[in-house]
Amino acid sequence: MKTFILFLSFSLQAFVSFSQDSDSLFINRISNQILTNGKAYDDLRVLTKQVGGRLSGSPQMVKAEKWGLKAMQDAGADKAWLQECMVPHWVRGGTDEASASYTSGDKKQVHKLDVIALGNSVGSMKPLTAPVIVVNSFDELDKRKDEVKGKIVFYNYKFVPTFIHTFGSYGDAVRYRGGGPSHAAAYGAVGVIVRSMSHSTDNNPHTGATNYVDSLAKIPAVAIGLKDADWLSSQAANGKVSVTIHTHGKFLPDTIGHNVIGELRGSEFPNEFITIGGHLDSWDPAEGAHDDGAGCVQTIELLRTFKALGYKPKRTIRFVLFANEENGGRGGAKYAEEALSKGEKHIFALESDEGGFTPRGFSATVSDSQFQKMQGWKDLLAPYGSCEWIRGGGGSDIGPLAKTQKTPLAGFMPDSQRYFDYHHARNDVFEAVNKRELELGAVNMAGLIYLVDKYGL
Amino acid sequence: MKTFILFLSFSLQAFVSFSQDSDSLFINRISNQILTNGKAYDDLRVLTKQVGGRLSGSPQMVKAEKWGLKAMQDAGADKAWLQECMVPHWVRGGTDEASASYTSGDKKQVHKLDVIALGNSVGSMKPLTAPVIVVNSFDELDKRKDEVKGKIVFYNYKFVPTFIHTFGSYGDAVRYRGGGPSHAAAYGAVGVIVRSMSHSTDNNPHTGATNYVDSLAKIPAVAIGLKDADWLSSQAANGKVSVTIHTHGKFLPDTIGHNVIGELRGSEFPNEFITIGGHLDSWDPAEGAHDDGAGCVQTIELLRTFKALGYKPKRTIRFVLFANEENGGRGGAKYAEEALSKGEKHIFALESDEGGFTPRGFSATVSDSQFQKMQGWKDLLAPYGSCEWIRGGGGSDIGPLAKTQKTPLAGFMPDSQRYFDYHHARNDVFEAVNKRELELGAVNMAGLIYLVDKYGL
Repeated sequence: MKTFILFLSFSLQAFVSFSQDSDSLFINRISNQILTNGKAYDDLRVLTKQVGGRLSGSPQMVKAEKWGLKAMQDAGADKAWLQECMVPHWVRGGTDEASASYTSGDKKQVHKLDVIALGNSVGSMKPLTAPVIVVNSFDELDKRKDEVKGKIVFYNYKFVPTFIHTFGSYGDAVRYRGGGPSHAAAYGAVGVIVRSMSHSTDNNPHTGATNYVDSLAKIPAVAIGLKDADWLSSQAANGKVSVTIHTHGKFLPDTIGHNVIGELRGSEFPNEFITIGGHLDSWDPAEGAHDDGAGCVQTIELLRTFKALGYKPKRTIRFVLFANEENGGRGGAKYAEEALSKGEKHIFALESDEGGFTPRGFSATVSDSQFQKMQGWKDLLAPYGSCEWIRGGGGSDIGPLAKTQKTPLAGFMPDSQRYFDYHHARNDVFEAVNKRELELGAVNMAGLIYLVDKYGL
Repeated sequence: MKTFILFLSFSLQAFVSFSQDSDSLFINRISNQILTNGKAYDDLRVLTKQVGGRLSGSPQMVKAEKWGLKAMQDAGADKAWLQECMVPHWVRGGTDEASASYTSGDKKQVHKLDVIALGNSVGSMKPLTAPVIVVNSFDELDKRKDEVKGKIVFYNYKFVPTFIHTFGSYGDAVRYRGGGPSHAAAYGAVGVIVRSMSHSTDNNPHTGATNYVDSLAKIPAVAIGLKDADWLSSQAANGKVSVTIHTHGKFLPDTIGHNVIGELRGSEFPNEFITIGGHLDSWDPAEGAHDDGAGCVQTIELLRTFKALGYKPKRTIRFVLFANEENGGRGGAKYAEEALSKGEKHIFALESDEGGFTPRGFSATVSDSQFQKMQGWKDLLAPYGSCEWIRGGGGSDIGPLAKTQKTPLAGFMPDSQRYFDYHHARNDVFEAVNKRELELGAVNMAGLIYLVDKYGL
């Protein structure tokens, strides 16, 4: 009996070793395929240069959906389709401008400011001029609330540099972009300037959604480049400064948008779904290269790679380019809603929405036992750059799957150091993405999807 | 007795935990100091923009040494000095040019090629024109040796894309740059073109040292941009192509160079030395930003940071900007030679010469027990980005310390994906370096040096 048990355990060990070896071999084939024949970089060039910035509701978004559907078909999806949803339709409406005027000696000076209107913000329509009040926090604003009426509030809250993961700094600062305008409006401010959500060394302003409180006045709001932010705060410390803001944003009626979906049907458990995706919409100032063209082309690359390797998944894999992540999340919500109504059992979802930078690993909102299972795969992905596995995280488009049916989620986690240099700014262009880094991201994502498909979670 | 042993082991555990906690706290202080007050980026701006490309023997190198010495003094070294050595003095001598001519139909066509002479190469002096023969390997050249006489050999060996660490591709391909000219000269070639050591998506040519065999003819040699490499090989496949090369390189007599050294004297073991460094010289086409301005400014940043934190090292720490790494290694050799002759006991050396990119970890040429000791520190550095620890590696300037007194070596290992996009090419400029990534590199390096200083190795 002892001999038999020993034999069994050796066999099991051998089987596990064999499995590990065969997984290791297959992931190596994935890597070689992508690094040698990858199409993600070429796909990104088309999406960024031929489609470009693509806000929800815009004509570019329509172009992007067409591109995405064809890309899914060309990559070899069993079936590919557009999933309709309603999306908000905000338009910038014109060129955002701002300048500061102040007196130096006898002379009135005017200093142009590099600004961009916040997404979802109301335009000033006509130029709006008012004295500026600089605050470094909501606390300070509250303390000085009696000074605010009729003024433009400039939130100069800086990205905290000591967070190693830059998303920590972003999470800490972004309340000024999201809630700053309404908080200032409550005290009678007529406009808001927000220091851009970045710690870049340039002066590019960074847009992004603001979220007005319905019961308060909706006032014009812009983000300012970091160098101009430093200039403005230092000038305002020296004496009165007036700022003129001229923006044009407004909402048009909600309109039709689409998630783009490609599918490979599972051979053993076709009713268990694995979703991998990025978001197809982007803010408008540039080309949406890192945010989130990278995630979209990586998603398509996974489909292409599995087909190229002749991989027949056990479970059904969905490759999704989500609509409307930047200002509404209607695409992610629709996807989860339809999944629920069709009784689809979504066992895992992975999103890539942190840029096409070199891989570091994954974040995962999963149970303890699921996380432990993933940890068992660490050594299979470590050679390709995945060395950090963090609890929590996922992706805003796949979040609704967790909400509606407790789907375990993961987020692809590239290195974060440069992300906020480009995020929602004019330099988020094709040239900012590195081919190798983009491809390695796809390698790691494909490896994880392969393992979840083979072993479940 | 059992109780006493239990007490002892708890105390030991508590002590170890306390030590780990206090190390963790101190490394956090290092991180906050560098990420908040770091000067490395500003230093790099000066070194790249005010000094610029700085070949051994050049006037820029003299300027760089002056800059380095002052930087060490300003950063708070107990003492700072220039350590003299002789260095080779190769000069480019003019603008490198090349073009290809071929017949298309009746018409003679001329196509300009983006080239750069290899370092240490002899110039053609007058324009050199000859038919080109394209080979993809030394093997192919050997097989076709009878076709070579009087021709220009074009080695079109490509970077192998399936290496995850790009230094693997480089190690595999660089023999064509180093040994290609002599190998071709042996068969009577009159000149050589080498596909650049890169897998970038642009057409920048990448220079770097070639190593002539003394007994063979020294023929002109250039590296060609990747797009022109593809063009040339495809054109040559269609019919005869002639190439004209015009380069001007030559050696002037060896001249005086210097290592720049800053020192913090140890309080407990002043006769045990820890060295941290980068190399101050650079190739000439750009600003030597990643290679190796980054390593130099990180080295100075460690000195500044230890002083700013009031850290008094147990051992003597040397902060060294080495001379002549790119084409001779005379600086590293001199440093080790003087250390030996002065009876200095060098217990550890760390070099940063892989660029100012986001940290991944360290490579280490150390004994098994030393490596195990370092592994014990993994969790202290992981939060700052060090997640890969590899056996082997070090740095070319600190290698002589291992040779002369078996000093354990480590190399700071940033992410390698973009390194060869800039290496020895015109785009290795200040703007290519990211402030956060540069600083995080310094954080990890400082953390490791602190631990080696505190615990020995």
